[in-house]
Amino acid sequence: MTDSLPAICFIWQIAMIALFAIFVRYDPEADAHWTEYMHQNNITSNIENDFYYRYPSFQDVHVMIFMGFGLLFTFLKRYSFGGVGFNFLISAFGLQWALLMQGWFHSLDSTDWTIKIGMKSLINADFCVAGCLIAFGACLGKVSPIQLMVMTLCGVSLFAVEEYVILNLIHAKDTGGSMVIHTFGGYYGLTISWILYRPNLHQSKRLRGSSYHSDVFAMIGTLFLWVHWPSFNSAIGNHGDGQHRAVINTYLSLAASVLTTFAVSSLSAKRGKLSMVHIQNATLAGGVAMGTAAEIMVSPYSALVVGVCSGIISTFGFVVLTPFMEKHMKIQDTCGIHNLHAMPGVLGGAVGAVTAAFASTSVYGQEGLMHAIMHGFVDRTMGMQAAHQARSLKQGYLFSLGCILRLPCWGDPEDENCFDDEVYWEVTATKVFQLLAAKLCNVEPLNQCTRSLLTWNCDFTHLETACRVYIFVFLSACLFAVCDYTDYSIMLF
Amino acid sequence: MTDSLPAICFIWQIAMIALFAIFVRYDPEADAHWTEYMHQNNITSNIENDFYYRYPSFQDVHVMIFMGFGLLFTFLKRYSFGGVGFNFLISAFGLQWALLMQGWFHSLDSTDWTIKIGMKSLINADFCVAGCLIAFGACLGKVSPIQLMVMTLCGVSLFAVEEYVILNLIHAKDTGGSMVIHTFGGYYGLTISWILYRPNLHQSKRLRGSSYHSDVFAMIGTLFLWVHWPSFNSAIGNHGDGQHRAVINTYLSLAASVLTTFAVSSLSAKRGKLSMVHIQNATLAGGVAMGTAAEIMVSPYSALVVGVCSGIISTFGFVVLTPFMEKHMKIQDTCGIHNLHAMPGVLGGAVGAVTAAFASTSVYGQEGLMHAIMHGFVDRTMGMQAAHQARSLKQGYLFSLGCILRLPCWGDPEDENCFDDEVYWEVTATKVFQLLAAKLCNVEPLNQCTRSLLTWNCDFTHLETACRVYIFVFLSACLFAVCDYTDYSIMLF
Amino acid sequence: MTDSLPAICFIWQIAMIALFAIFVRYDPEADAHWTEYMHQNNITSNIENDFYYRYPSFQDVHVMIFMGFGLLFTFLKRYSFGGVGFNFLISAFGLQWALLMQGWFHSLDSTDWTIKIGMKSLINADFCVAGCLIAFGACLGKVSPIQLMVMTLCGVSLFAVEEYVILNLIHAKDTGGSMVIHTFGGYYGLTISWILYRPNLHQSKRLRGSSYHSDVFAMIGTLFLWVHWPSFNSAIGNHGDGQHRAVINTYLSLAASVLTTFAVSSLSAKRGKLSMVHIQNATLAGGVAMGTAAEIMVSPYSALVVGVCSGIISTFGFVVLTPFMEKHMKIQDTCGIHNLHAMPGVLGGAVGAVTAAFASTSVYGQEGLMHAIMHGFVDRTMGMQAAHQARSLKQGYLFSLGCILRLPCWGDPEDENCFDDEVYWEVTATKVFQLLAAKLCNVEPLNQCTRSLLTWNCDFTHLETACRVYIFVFLSACLFAVCDYTDYSIMLF
Repeated sequence: MTDSLPAICFIWQIAMIALFAIFVRYDPEADAHWTEYMHQNNITSNIENDFYYRYPSFQDVHVMIFMGFGLLFTFLKRYSFGGVGFNFLISAFGLQWALLMQGWFHSLDSTDWTIKIGMKSLINADFCVAGCLIAFGACLGKVSPIQLMVMTLCGVSLFAVEEYVILNLIHAKDTGGSMVIHTFGGYYGLTISWILYRPNLHQSKRLRGSSYHSDVFAMIGTLFLWVHWPSFNSAIGNHGDGQHRAVINTYLSLAASVLTTFAVSSLSAKRGKLSMVHIQNATLAGGVAMGTAAEIMVSPYSALVVGVCSGIISTFGFVVLTPFMEKHMKIQDTCGIHNLHAMPGVLGGAVGAVTAAFASTSVYGQEGLMHAIMHGFVDRTMGMQAAHQARSLKQGYLFSLGCILRLPCWGDPEDENCFDDEVYWEVTATKVFQLLAAKLCNVEPLNQCTRSLLTWNCDFTHLETACRVYIFVFLSACLFAVCDYTDYSIMLF
Repeated sequence: MTDSLPAICFIWQIAMIALFAIFVRYDPEADAHWTEYMHQNNITSNIENDFYYRYPSFQDVHVMIFMGFGLLFTFLKRYSFGGVGFNFLISAFGLQWALLMQGWFHSLDSTDWTIKIGMKSLINADFCVAGCLIAFGACLGKVSPIQLMVMTLCGVSLFAVEEYVILNLIHAKDTGGSMVIHTFGGYYGLTISWILYRPNLHQSKRLRGSSYHSDVFAMIGTLFLWVHWPSFNSAIGNHGDGQHRAVINTYLSLAASVLTTFAVSSLSAKRGKLSMVHIQNATLAGGVAMGTAAEIMVSPYSALVVGVCSGIISTFGFVVLTPFMEKHMKIQDTCGIHNLHAMPGVLGGAVGAVTAAFASTSVYGQEGLMHAIMHGFVDRTMGMQAAHQARSLKQGYLFSLGCILRLPCWGDPEDENCFDDEVYWEVTATKVFQLLAAKLCNVEPLNQCTRSLLTWNCDFTHLETACRVYIFVFLSACLFAVCDYTDYSIMLF
Repeated sequence: MTDSLPAICFIWQIAMIALFAIFVRYDPEADAHWTEYMHQNNITSNIENDFYYRYPSFQDVHVMIFMGFGLLFTFLKRYSFGGVGFNFLISAFGLQWALLMQGWFHSLDSTDWTIKIGMKSLINADFCVAGCLIAFGACLGKVSPIQLMVMTLCGVSLFAVEEYVILNLIHAKDTGGSMVIHTFGGYYGLTISWILYRPNLHQSKRLRGSSYHSDVFAMIGTLFLWVHWPSFNSAIGNHGDGQHRAVINTYLSLAASVLTTFAVSSLSAKRGKLSMVHIQNATLAGGVAMGTAAEIMVSPYSALVVGVCSGIISTFGFVVLTPFMEKHMKIQDTCGIHNLHAMPGVLGGAVGAVTAAFASTSVYGQEGLMHAIMHGFVDRTMGMQAAHQARSLKQGYLFSLGCILRLPCWGDPEDENCFDDEVYWEVTATKVFQLLAAKLCNVEPLNQCTRSLLTWNCDFTHLETACRVYIFVFLSACLFAVCDYTDYSIMLF
């Protein structure tokens, strides 16, 4: 059934073209009528085009998605092609679907039913893809490209709904996406990994480690993410001081998490040796945890504190939680996304809730306060805003966690044989295993076996079952979100 | 004759210094008189300096030239140094010569016979170098650094002439250089590869493949190119909506070509496996094909369609055309530039011609239309503009293709022995071959033999013949271009 | 004593948090009061926020520090983790300490004793870290992470003092930091390398080389530095023409140094072969040498001349000076920073002095001249400025060189046994050596031995001695600087 990948790529791409033809148009700032738009809006210079405010940040975010995530996923000794290649495939599909989904939920023009895309839409599409790539990290090496495509389709859809609830209904603020992107992506990925649990994964244990050079490749990915994270957290920030402050806060938080990662990594190992896995991942936790509060006047030292805390919990997670989850909770988290994205994301949401509660006109000035936190909802008190922040955190968390916790019908996969890992995985694993054992010094066969890793025989009947279950989850989650939101509304107003 | 590389580097560099001393000055926007220039031109803020409009895009283009192309060329298992190193050498020389050539043709100040260089000149110089690097791709591993330097000198010169004809005489529009850069570079490289055809190249077959990690290095290069391509197509676009729209179009086109590349690659292989060569190259075809029409109001869905088509023809080219050309047309195209640059470039030119023909004031607004397409040539009808676009495509194509088609005096190289590959190549190949066979597990000799790949004994008498033939081609091509242009002029006016 | 790394990381990070809480606040341009600040200063648009002038350059500099330097340091065949990892650790610590030190010296607000950090502070902190990373280059592979942390603490402190003397007391101009960053960092690193001289370093000779792929990794680092160097030299330049000109000058200078590096490298080797060490390093010399004069109206051809000269002396240094220094001066310079940073830095200072002396109103215009060179010190003659430039070069040079030349109490380390290399180094080296010899084809043990390279047993009693000696040097150097400055003041006024 490997033939289905071309079919899916073609059909979905054609569907995208059709939907784009119906719905998508250029934003006034990217349209040839821009000169007239300038006259109408008293804009005096081309430099005021949003393009010049956001393009450098957009490019950095784009580099993070395709190069940062892609190279970070090359750390496995014989899955570098899959890591960087599938990352490429699902990102390229995801961003098209994200432009549509986010457009329908956030910016559908009610006069002509079109979506106007501009620089901010492209950044948001990349953000949405980031959520799916985080989920990919948990399943790295265990899923077929077709499963990844389905996962991305559902992930982007869920993301748009969840983002709509958090940003547009609850009116929380989440500039860098601690809640919207990282907490969501983390628990979405863990859910899928739990669904696809493989009891016999130890059979491919020999391929699960890294090699010397693959670790350096992954380190390049880490550095891409680390260096450009200030752009990630500031890309859709407010013009002027908002973006400026988001960069400073993220820069400091990231620097602090590097030091604590080195410290905890050295503490946790025998004879104080450092682990590349920790350095590659936990050093980034500061950026995740600073996401929600990036634009808030948290003051520079608080940014350092956030970085320190996130670095500690993230490295601690790698040392303690990931083995625990694999052993006792049947969650096999290849890249440790729970430690890098989910937990620091929750921390980030909490930081956002606390700092929003302490916002005052003395810190922000009357005008700045409205601008930075309230989005114009002037009749809300600070406390309410804080409650909203806290709730939206819970929302993001539960929305994806719900899939794990509230759906007993998703029992142990072995029993039902519906997500039998033997079908997708073991054959390939064995093949590679044999080849590796037999011809370790011979370069050509290794290449061949690597390439053989790039696709799997995937039994479509199982995939159908998966899809059906998935649609069920999706609908349940939507229902759950709507109920939850009604609860809030009643309570608050 | 390996001693000639230092001599050529020194002499050419000194020549550059002399020519720069005579001709090159700072642009008013980069000159210390800028403050006075601001007063004279009613510019109110430093941010209106072109530097701030274009610098982020320039940096991305610069990264593409040196890192994107450089790393893409490291895919050969034992030619990574040569790929990235010679790319570095010829780019660094090429951009100096391009500043001069483009300056003489496009922006020679007639009052004091100087060239004023600013941000746009640097971007154009990088573009010009890109054309030569594409040509390098066809010859990768088969030419000496001295040949490359000569190739770059001639390539940049040809480029400037061809660009002058297309942009300044025919007044076609080619923001992202589908015709000017990619079609030209592609056929220029194929011509040279055809000239340097080596019937016994199969003797170095063992070294022609990639290794696991060299494929990952090349993939980093691909991602650099892919991620920054929106900057490439928008770098010299019009301020405001022009650059904004070019980014959106390229972003979408690239995303679409990724999906179709994966689809066709999977279809074309036994058992549906994906090929790294396709992923490394054909995914970029969307950017190439969007070049000419980047700034045009093609609408987002058309950008997707362009991406789909270019991805298909490019991957198809790798599967079918490259082997065919090597076998039957004596063109050995190491990197497959015909598939990545030449064909998508032709497609891009065609897209430009079609979209220009459909431009109307309803889509652009009166002001926008003039701005975007016409460069102020208001008395031309749309159809004429379209004809011009189509012709300029042919122009770029024939200009370089002419070298192949119209010069029967360049017969089979074996007979004349003038470009005998034995002289430059076989010795090295054999040397490496022996070393590889004998000492595969030993690391040091491999390094040595790799370093030995970095230079070749090149017989200068052959090079002289080559140069003479080259000058002949260059003059013929110029003549041909002038005749062709006269034809157009007569026909059109 | 490996346990001290976590302790040092934690304690220093907590100290940073405390100091940041006391001293560091947001700059008005990054503060929520920005809107009010705009009204007060008649700023009409958010785009006038310094963020939009400098953010693209800042990101490039950030990439250079973490990715450029980090990957450049991966060239050793079994020290890639150490190179990129320790670079990461000390940069993340160094930038926090640099924000404080530079804040205290340059921008302490006398009304409330706080430091206001904005985009320019972040760039300067990265610059300061660059000085320490250059010093790291000389000691690469020979020091423990704890020593590196101490080295960074002292280096950043010294840097801030030296920078204060050169920029604020002598009022020299050094946009790209030829003197302040490169000359300082170079001689600081050489001093430390001389202090830590290891007579028996030849015992780890087998590990001192590069492997094929580690050379490609290092080449990626080189390209990151090369491509982004124009941003480095323009990042803190004057708005408008200043930044624009700095980019053009650096772009040209770098291009020229590539050609001469290839030429001299080919000349210096048997049979004209090129050396990756030269290409990886000397090609960057043009950027270093253009630092001081980046913003000056040197004219484009002079930038090429500077690039040519720096490329020649740098490659020459690698061929002749580094072996000489190791053999006769007991300075073991792992990365050859003397050739890449120290010597081109001195050249850059000299270029700055000469060009400042030739500045005239005919070249700059009255307004431009004041702007570009004088910082408003209108009553100084050009000659005096040039003398200042020359002196500040000497200052930067002697400040660090003083450590070598004027402290006879730092005798031969063997005699005193205080920096005995056996303690930190030989054990690890032997371990790796044995493992390598015994199990060359086995991948796992290689990985283990690599990881064992990441930390060392460091005897803390020796480190204490080192610290004591260090504090002595630091105080002597400060004293020396103050005396020197008094000399100048008397002579000049």
